[in-house]
Amino acid sequence: MVRTIDWAGDHVVIIDQTRLPGELVRLELRTVDEIVDAIRRLAVRGAPAIGVAGGLGVALAALPDPASAPAAAGRLRAARPTAVNLAWAVDRVLARLPEGVDRLVAVAPGLLEEEVATNGALAARGADWVQARLPGAVSVHTHCNAGGLACVEWGTALGVVRALHERGAVREVFAGETRPLLQGARLTAYELDLLGIPHRVVVDGAGPSLIARGLVDVVIVGADRIAANGDVANKIGTFPLALAADRAGVPFVVAAPESTLDPATPTGEAITIEERDPTEVTTFAPAYNPAFDVTPHDLVTAIITERRVVEP
Amino acid sequence: MVRTIDWAGDHVVIIDQTRLPGELVRLELRTVDEIVDAIRRLAVRGAPAIGVAGGLGVALAALPDPASAPAAAGRLRAARPTAVNLAWAVDRVLARLPEGVDRLVAVAPGLLEEEVATNGALAARGADWVQARLPGAVSVHTHCNAGGLACVEWGTALGVVRALHERGAVREVFAGETRPLLQGARLTAYELDLLGIPHRVVVDGAGPSLIARGLVDVVIVGADRIAANGDVANKIGTFPLALAADRAGVPFVVAAPESTLDPATPTGEAITIEERDPTEVTTFAPAYNPAFDVTPHDLVTAIITERRVVEP
Repeated sequence: MVRTIDWAGDHVVIIDQTRLPGELVRLELRTVDEIVDAIRRLAVRGAPAIGVAGGLGVALAALPDPASAPAAAGRLRAARPTAVNLAWAVDRVLARLPEGVDRLVAVAPGLLEEEVATNGALAARGADWVQARLPGAVSVHTHCNAGGLACVEWGTALGVVRALHERGAVREVFAGETRPLLQGARLTAYELDLLGIPHRVVVDGAGPSLIARGLVDVVIVGADRIAANGDVANKIGTFPLALAADRAGVPFVVAAPESTLDPATPTGEAITIEERDPTEVTTFAPAYNPAFDVTPHDLVTAIITERRVVEP
Repeated sequence: MVRTIDWAGDHVVIIDQTRLPGELVRLELRTVDEIVDAIRRLAVRGAPAIGVAGGLGVALAALPDPASAPAAAGRLRAARPTAVNLAWAVDRVLARLPEGVDRLVAVAPGLLEEEVATNGALAARGADWVQARLPGAVSVHTHCNAGGLACVEWGTALGVVRALHERGAVREVFAGETRPLLQGARLTAYELDLLGIPHRVVVDGAGPSLIARGLVDVVIVGADRIAANGDVANKIGTFPLALAADRAGVPFVVAAPESTLDPATPTGEAITIEERDPTEVTTFAPAYNPAFDVTPHDLVTAIITERRVVEP
């Protein structure tokens, strides 16, 4: 898998995810404005990847003008409101400013390597957890794209799926298409195809009934922010999968890096749900377009990070 | 509201619902094959409307050749498997065959008038039920299209909404867009617009979290078949709304004519779920396209027909 985001010494290179799966287009981003725009229009997306993009954005600002870094950090943090990884990574890089611009810029590539290592550890831990509970090959339901495109190389939820697949433990993956922007149909299906993992796309309304009908052994999703009580904000359409999994006795697993945990947010109610442009939904009629939902902690079976498994 | 289906003495006239909301196109159907094709490709759709189409189809077959009516009835019944109204109406018209073709054909227009009367009674009864429990103007969530287009004039779930609106008791309607064919975004929004009822379309994954966030006072949907135990088959994406409504303490109401009740089907598990062409979902990736889901009876607050209210 190619890297969805990379640092080229003095600029950032991303895959434009709005063009997939039709075209694999790389973009060179040289200014903070270009990074902010790429994050806003979802050219780079996925909580871990936009975190890395934000951190690299601070380096882009500091290189020509260190004094501009704090203001740039503010604009980067505000590019999308729900994922906590963005603010986390921006603040981590900005914290190096007092040490000088060279030290700050040297930190940036470390974000990429750290992300890869984090995802690898998370994937192995998640696969262990699933195999300990569900022997044999499993059918997985996932939503949106929490794969390599959302991160740097491996992915979170799809990282777990990939690790399971390498152990011969995946029968099939159902991918919710993820309206309105179809990240499941466009990006997750693309990644699963590259990995040679059997998969079918389903409309978002179908996931809960597949679970109820016994077609799904485990639900594995990523997260944009996890509140202190374990409530999980993730792409709109995640919550109904958790409701159905709870009712069917199917594990509902959230795979996310530690940087997604937000102790400063007490519960899901305190999480800002981004509302995107209604025209993303349709041009036929007035629309309402919340981009995320919150799954209450009592519906979560396990939260798996690169370091630990939390079972509420 | 113009009639979605009508009888013109020796042929059937329908509105081609695949062309809405862009164009209001009427089709004249003169053979059983044309009726079957219109039902299969959803040019005429909605359980009550396809019931009427099936019944009129038997008349179309009997007019030139009464002996062909039983075989035609078999093909009409098989055009779509989930909605029970289709077989019900086909069998009702076919039962007149021994009385002669004139008698059989005379029954056909009666199906239309009966449907209009049924929907009117159902709408009033449903509005009464909602107002008795939820004083003031309510926010309604609905799914797919159970409006005039799905019936003959008034509609079932949207008939209740229209009756509530005429009593000044609707604040707003959220319409699930209903992937893959967008009956909510295309047809429900079109009808609500004609009726002057405030509405917004949401992606199907959003409905459950709108309910959890307190934005919805009542969920009102139609049904394609209701099993003897009260399990309800309806358009895929209905079940997650029921799960969310149950958890939030929001009433989940099914508005359907008595002809949708199927005492011969003991539970939802016995209902055939139509699987449609995967290309309806996407041409990017392999897809799985179940068209309906089943909502277990314990998640249903009330089933309202033109004759009664059943509260399990």
